[in-house]
Amino acid sequence: MSNLGQLIEIPTHGDERGSLSVAEIGGVLPFVVRRAYWIHGTKPGVARGFHAHRKLNQFCVCVSGSVRIVLEDAKGREDVFLNRPDRGLLIGPGVWREMHDLSADCVLLVLADGEYDEADYVRDRQKLT
Amino acid sequence: MSNLGQLIEIPTHGDERGSLSVAEIGGVLPFVVRRAYWIHGTKPGVARGFHAHRKLNQFCVCVSGSVRIVLEDAKGREDVFLNRPDRGLLIGPGVWREMHDLSADCVLLVLADGEYDEADYVRDRQKLT
Repeated sequence: MSNLGQLIEIPTHGDERGSLSVAEIGGVLPFVVRRAYWIHGTKPGVARGFHAHRKLNQFCVCVSGSVRIVLEDAKGREDVFLNRPDRGLLIGPGVWREMHDLSADCVLLVLADGEYDEADYVRDRQKLT
Repeated sequence: MSNLGQLIEIPTHGDERGSLSVAEIGGVLPFVVRRAYWIHGTKPGVARGFHAHRKLNQFCVCVSGSVRIVLEDAKGREDVFLNRPDRGLLIGPGVWREMHDLSADCVLLVLADGEYDEADYVRDRQKLT
């Protein structure tokens, strides 16, 4: 359950071979992806994020390990725990995000609808409207 | 080194927090992504793939663990070992691919330029031209 993000069950084909999870246009992926990144090898105790985006949409999946994501806007703050490769979290513009408690084996995949643009970042939480 | 695929070094920002690897348009990602999938929880001894695509382009990254990918076309066959989240393998149309020796912690991320289309699959190796 999340009010600030949208939790999405990712279709997963599991059989005797193992599992394959799919996010595609026409399925659970709501935009074409122009930027993909993955966070890995995070040191113990390190938190990341601490920004919002003005326009960017992101689809986040913890494909290995676990992470606690904190979402916040002017109305509230909440924790979302991601620890499954078949669960996505869609985060839209104007939502502050922090990543905490990344496990040693955490790989957090982020699919985004735009390339890196420093002007799209809000790094001062006080400026969230 | 690969003749049938293209190995790509993925820009990775490493600092005291850990690492973040990026594939984006204008960078190492050669197409917008309409389908993303990730293979995980593969059982020991299981191999996957065993097909080629007629038109699809795929960008593969082993973001956790390791996998041996076999590529083949009418001219030859080769092994490509992927075991780093900062190494991508671009596989174009007409190349037969198999995935072998997936480690228990292997997560193989595949970014593709088209949605699933059964008509795009070549599942009979004899039909490779």
